[in-house]
Amino acid sequence: MEIEDYGVQPMDDASPPKWHLAHVSWFFETFILCQFGETYQRFHPHFEYLFNSYYNGVGTPFPRPQRGFLSRPTVAEVMAYRQHVDSAMSALLEAAPQHPEVLQRVQLGIHHEQQHQELLLTDIKYNFGHNPLFPALIPPLAPTLAPPLAKEELGGATPLDRAAGDLAFSAFAGGIHEVGIDAGDEQFKFDNECPRHEVLIRPFAMANRVISNGEFLEFMQDGGYQRAELWLSEGWSTVQSQGWQQPLYWHQVDGEWFEYRLDGLHALDLHLPAVHISGHEAYAFAQWRGLRLPTEFEWEVAAAELELDQPSGYVESGRGHPHGYTGDHQLQQMFGCVWQWTASSYAPYPGFKPLPGTLGEYNGKFMSSQLVLRGGSCATPRSHLRKTYRNFFYPPDRWQFSGIRLAQDLD
Amino acid sequence: MEIEDYGVQPMDDASPPKWHLAHVSWFFETFILCQFGETYQRFHPHFEYLFNSYYNGVGTPFPRPQRGFLSRPTVAEVMAYRQHVDSAMSALLEAAPQHPEVLQRVQLGIHHEQQHQELLLTDIKYNFGHNPLFPALIPPLAPTLAPPLAKEELGGATPLDRAAGDLAFSAFAGGIHEVGIDAGDEQFKFDNECPRHEVLIRPFAMANRVISNGEFLEFMQDGGYQRAELWLSEGWSTVQSQGWQQPLYWHQVDGEWFEYRLDGLHALDLHLPAVHISGHEAYAFAQWRGLRLPTEFEWEVAAAELELDQPSGYVESGRGHPHGYTGDHQLQQMFGCVWQWTASSYAPYPGFKPLPGTLGEYNGKFMSSQLVLRGGSCATPRSHLRKTYRNFFYPPDRWQFSGIRLAQDLD
Amino acid sequence: MEIEDYGVQPMDDASPPKWHLAHVSWFFETFILCQFGETYQRFHPHFEYLFNSYYNGVGTPFPRPQRGFLSRPTVAEVMAYRQHVDSAMSALLEAAPQHPEVLQRVQLGIHHEQQHQELLLTDIKYNFGHNPLFPALIPPLAPTLAPPLAKEELGGATPLDRAAGDLAFSAFAGGIHEVGIDAGDEQFKFDNECPRHEVLIRPFAMANRVISNGEFLEFMQDGGYQRAELWLSEGWSTVQSQGWQQPLYWHQVDGEWFEYRLDGLHALDLHLPAVHISGHEAYAFAQWRGLRLPTEFEWEVAAAELELDQPSGYVESGRGHPHGYTGDHQLQQMFGCVWQWTASSYAPYPGFKPLPGTLGEYNGKFMSSQLVLRGGSCATPRSHLRKTYRNFFYPPDRWQFSGIRLAQDLD
Amino acid sequence: MEIEDYGVQPMDDASPPKWHLAHVSWFFETFILCQFGETYQRFHPHFEYLFNSYYNGVGTPFPRPQRGFLSRPTVAEVMAYRQHVDSAMSALLEAAPQHPEVLQRVQLGIHHEQQHQELLLTDIKYNFGHNPLFPALIPPLAPTLAPPLAKEELGGATPLDRAAGDLAFSAFAGGIHEVGIDAGDEQFKFDNECPRHEVLIRPFAMANRVISNGEFLEFMQDGGYQRAELWLSEGWSTVQSQGWQQPLYWHQVDGEWFEYRLDGLHALDLHLPAVHISGHEAYAFAQWRGLRLPTEFEWEVAAAELELDQPSGYVESGRGHPHGYTGDHQLQQMFGCVWQWTASSYAPYPGFKPLPGTLGEYNGKFMSSQLVLRGGSCATPRSHLRKTYRNFFYPPDRWQFSGIRLAQDLD
Repeated sequence: MEIEDYGVQPMDDASPPKWHLAHVSWFFETFILCQFGETYQRFHPHFEYLFNSYYNGVGTPFPRPQRGFLSRPTVAEVMAYRQHVDSAMSALLEAAPQHPEVLQRVQLGIHHEQQHQELLLTDIKYNFGHNPLFPALIPPLAPTLAPPLAKEELGGATPLDRAAGDLAFSAFAGGIHEVGIDAGDEQFKFDNECPRHEVLIRPFAMANRVISNGEFLEFMQDGGYQRAELWLSEGWSTVQSQGWQQPLYWHQVDGEWFEYRLDGLHALDLHLPAVHISGHEAYAFAQWRGLRLPTEFEWEVAAAELELDQPSGYVESGRGHPHGYTGDHQLQQMFGCVWQWTASSYAPYPGFKPLPGTLGEYNGKFMSSQLVLRGGSCATPRSHLRKTYRNFFYPPDRWQFSGIRLAQDLD
Repeated sequence: MEIEDYGVQPMDDASPPKWHLAHVSWFFETFILCQFGETYQRFHPHFEYLFNSYYNGVGTPFPRPQRGFLSRPTVAEVMAYRQHVDSAMSALLEAAPQHPEVLQRVQLGIHHEQQHQELLLTDIKYNFGHNPLFPALIPPLAPTLAPPLAKEELGGATPLDRAAGDLAFSAFAGGIHEVGIDAGDEQFKFDNECPRHEVLIRPFAMANRVISNGEFLEFMQDGGYQRAELWLSEGWSTVQSQGWQQPLYWHQVDGEWFEYRLDGLHALDLHLPAVHISGHEAYAFAQWRGLRLPTEFEWEVAAAELELDQPSGYVESGRGHPHGYTGDHQLQQMFGCVWQWTASSYAPYPGFKPLPGTLGEYNGKFMSSQLVLRGGSCATPRSHLRKTYRNFFYPPDRWQFSGIRLAQDLD
Repeated sequence: MEIEDYGVQPMDDASPPKWHLAHVSWFFETFILCQFGETYQRFHPHFEYLFNSYYNGVGTPFPRPQRGFLSRPTVAEVMAYRQHVDSAMSALLEAAPQHPEVLQRVQLGIHHEQQHQELLLTDIKYNFGHNPLFPALIPPLAPTLAPPLAKEELGGATPLDRAAGDLAFSAFAGGIHEVGIDAGDEQFKFDNECPRHEVLIRPFAMANRVISNGEFLEFMQDGGYQRAELWLSEGWSTVQSQGWQQPLYWHQVDGEWFEYRLDGLHALDLHLPAVHISGHEAYAFAQWRGLRLPTEFEWEVAAAELELDQPSGYVESGRGHPHGYTGDHQLQQMFGCVWQWTASSYAPYPGFKPLPGTLGEYNGKFMSSQLVLRGGSCATPRSHLRKTYRNFFYPPDRWQFSGIRLAQDLD
Repeated sequence: MEIEDYGVQPMDDASPPKWHLAHVSWFFETFILCQFGETYQRFHPHFEYLFNSYYNGVGTPFPRPQRGFLSRPTVAEVMAYRQHVDSAMSALLEAAPQHPEVLQRVQLGIHHEQQHQELLLTDIKYNFGHNPLFPALIPPLAPTLAPPLAKEELGGATPLDRAAGDLAFSAFAGGIHEVGIDAGDEQFKFDNECPRHEVLIRPFAMANRVISNGEFLEFMQDGGYQRAELWLSEGWSTVQSQGWQQPLYWHQVDGEWFEYRLDGLHALDLHLPAVHISGHEAYAFAQWRGLRLPTEFEWEVAAAELELDQPSGYVESGRGHPHGYTGDHQLQQMFGCVWQWTASSYAPYPGFKPLPGTLGEYNGKFMSSQLVLRGGSCATPRSHLRKTYRNFFYPPDRWQFSGIRLAQDLD
């Protein structure tokens, strides 16, 4: 990263890295230091306004689409701001006894910062991936080695795979299941994951892995982006107005397909997951395959039995790109690979209670027009990989590491 | 109605009446006569294109926002077109034996036309209500006579009403309930109402009536349109960008509130339902009252026991405006008064099967970003008032006869 | 014309015919009757607002892009309004003695109405020409009979024609000429034509006729719309953003070119003038021919000697389309054929005095970013064909009957 | 300047400083080295595309509004690019003999770079002036010392000043004057200044100085931004749509007026020139004063006798802000103070010949919808202050150092 990379905002959603770095300190300053740090002095009187993201309770934020217009404060000044806040936080936390609210907010602030670490990566990728020079952020990835099992090898494995190519499916029983987590549970969780509650599930089957570049290419070659009948009405409008003909980072050069990854522009690897797929594209792909996206509760039920200790992906692995699949039939690529679009609208759980006060704006006010994604991606911090975690984006969004897992009814 | 009223399109969603009249005949022509009428001659070669609404399977439709630019065909020509189609339909239906598909499509075509009858009314209202001359479509309504029961009279009626002013609430038990209707059921239904299936409901209470103008005015006077914390993020953006300060048809003149109704501009009647409320306004109102909107399934469960034989409203009653409430505590204004926004995203029921072919575009492709409304309004044909009917609009939409019914948790 | 044709506004600039009819009466009402008609009663209290075009001195006008949304007042009501104003005007004019200002304003009002008669025709043409049914307003035109003289016949006629194909050119001497007209001159004139003043002209030559469809087609076939170097920067942006590939009313069907004219859609007549050409297209065409557009003063100097008694075109001739050219070399098609784009920005003459008061908004405030056109078109009233008349439109405008006359330097 | 300041583009017109630095080298590379440097190797294959401004002859340029999205190449890489081009240019120029075209293009390239030096300053000012931190680029300016002469002192000075407050006016005779410069003249000039030619001027008087902040404040306090009758129609639309209530860099804080200057935010100095004024504001101000803007030819005639050796302003003086006026009546602030809007549309001089080839796009293709400004500003390089220099911007533009000089008729 060069200093210049910290400042640009190539689209409204992709904030400058510098802004992320300042905003996460702003969060500690605003919600902890200014309220509990009795002698705390603000670093700069304008930062409350400049680095507020969307908390109307703190005042009208600086306009989001103009974050990339701020050459000042510089990166060095932002780092000094972070240092200032970090020192004050250390001093506050060393004092005893703590107000119980402080520790809860510190924990929230840390998870907030981790969420922005993921956004940093996706926003930098958006910047680099839209620069004609296609700079690389990380060293070259090793090529994927093992080709997937051929379709015939998978053939008899399960009665489901005939309809779905070489995907294998795991079956799950219907009935009342519990999902979510209780606010009183000691594990950290966001308010939107609460409370734990019952849902009624119908028998279903979940694909063992996410859709690969090779499969998505088949969809394209079968006219996927030209066939209105595969798309939701809003999706088709987006295809038309945005001129979508391929996933976000795919480029066709002299008849060959390439993909921009954080390690640069490379020939499309058919074995790797299709990534940076919008919810609309995920829906259309599922229609094309005669299957559907899972609900967020089906996903959570399917994940219930899985072991989370050793996921192959997530950001700390340093891989920077979703990992491929193995040839066996186990449920894989569930965590830390790609965020998996679900069919579920982002809505409050029954009995949902937002955090009190301005922090209640963290999650709840976004519960319209968005879809839930599950599982975490290669850019997600390890501590955010959990079975109840609900991410949410608009159906046309595709700058996150998002992909497709399919499901089907079983009755 | 004057001939001029048939042609205008004051916003993209409010199509010219002439267009509606032609489109519903187009539906019969396209889906029945052109496929089953062996000797049928199209009325005009361009009408297939001009009066297609959104069926991509029929070709690229004439652009929706330009429907109001078509001074030709004239109203007389559209009427001749309708006559042409009606005659051909009569001839087709007199022939025997019928292809079984024909009768199903005729039934669908009739219900389709009835839906457009409602849109005709809301679109004309939008036109008249945005003309500075405020023309009236219908004779003056009688003033509402009986004031509602005073709050104190209601006082002890139910343990719920203390938190909710003079609203009374009916309690419903939790558990597994059935909703929807089976495709095989002989009653007419749209594909999006199917299949009948189980849902898990938690104990809840439903307000006995919809919110009145008087109550909505209190919300406004308490700063409802100025308080960001009451709104979803998208709702607040809409308030800002559209400059919303009151419901769609309210006007303040010299400090007094007036409402445009189909009988003209009148002083706001506090006893009548608040109507032409968007989903965002409904949500904010519920937040302000410390309550919530019901889910579509809670609504259907609450409606299950009700008698539908004598609803007070619906379009055939000729009232043209939602009816007020009585002072008692019974569940009222459920049908034919105002469409009631629910908290439920418009999504496919488990096992949803769209109609085959191009008719499958009727409902399914709109299942994103919209909310379900239930109950039918004063503009809804009588035959569309049913317990399983799912209407759907975007949260900012407010040109339909839509209002607010509140609910709350019961545990 | 059907009643429906009176109400539509297919683009912001093309007002509904009904609006024009009301606005010209509004002009008499506002500027004469309300000021000099002592007992005059307004026809309707809202019409002052509804039918104000752009006179800020009268108040904020009803938004122009929404004129087509007004189904009321109806055509009949507008006609009654016109009758009301006409009667009051008759009564006022019969009274004696007149305030001198009244007669001047009456004269202005009549010329104002005549200007709107021309707009009525161009706006109706825009409506009909954008309706897929392409209705005709007038009976079919006779085909053009005489082909133009072949290039070789013209050959030796003038030393200029070698560079310019079969165009012939008339030479004019440089020096100081007078243009414009004095305010005190008894002939009617608009304020923007005054005062008569001296201009310095360089020797120039003027093409004997306007550019034909055939010539414009050559430009297209030579890549005219694809060659950036021919266009002004703003023109090229317009070509790109609007997707211009041909003049406004040209359509290519199965490889053949057709033109929508007021008598319907017809095969392109190569002999007739290229019409509905924007200023940008006129400039690019001139660049392509290695020539230039005349200034408005060159045009006026060239016109000075011409006889205006028997122009072939103008609206009263009922032709409805620009007339073709004869084979001889005389200066022709100057008046009543097509408005001819000049290279002159629309600017005040030295000593320009707008009319006093709100009527001063008639012309003066539009003197930025527009170009002057001269000569009048087939849609222009006879009394508006005069040598000093200055019409003005924006360079991208092309819904008027506008075309191209070329000029060149002579030294 | 910090590295971060080189990358931002806070509006489409204000390119990142880094882009300017690269583009001016691109000019030498594209138009000289790639054509005349026989062994020249391009620095980077993508830079031809990335740093093309608007030369369609070189290919489709990288989209202008996205220049601020390019974090790469970095500032250091751009500097290396400049070094690469500079070295190659040195080598080329040392070789002998030169192609005559090379020297002409070098001279053009240098003047091109000087123009971008001015833009660098105005674009950085736009960035800093829109950052809530209001950083300063230069040390504080000395306060203006001498108050202007009081109106009474000026009183009898000239018969003109009574109508125009304390402005004094110089009279100029009418008749045929020569303006412009011949292409063959050895002094450097742009193609748009040629050829020298005769114009007819009427007797006029020119204000001795430009309008001050104090005078512009009077305009505002007299309702200047609220009175439609003072504005051109396009200007009034801009006032409404942009919400203009004061000049670009003025801010009202607690009832006091401040101005952002390159030395930071300071109390408004009433003696200094009103600067960053759009052409529309200049026009409205002139209307309010009952005067007018000069034509570009009047300005040139008035400047003809002036001595240019010692202008007080221009960029090399390091002042960074326009200088104030003295109390005497001499014609002052003509050069190197503020660009002075004229009433003249930017149009080709008679006989204008653009440079051949792609360089012909330098000036000529912008000759529509713009106005000419004269005189140069405090940000203009010394070598660009000349009497025939024609700058051009759109009437609503106001991020340049532009101001107002008034004129009036004299007969």
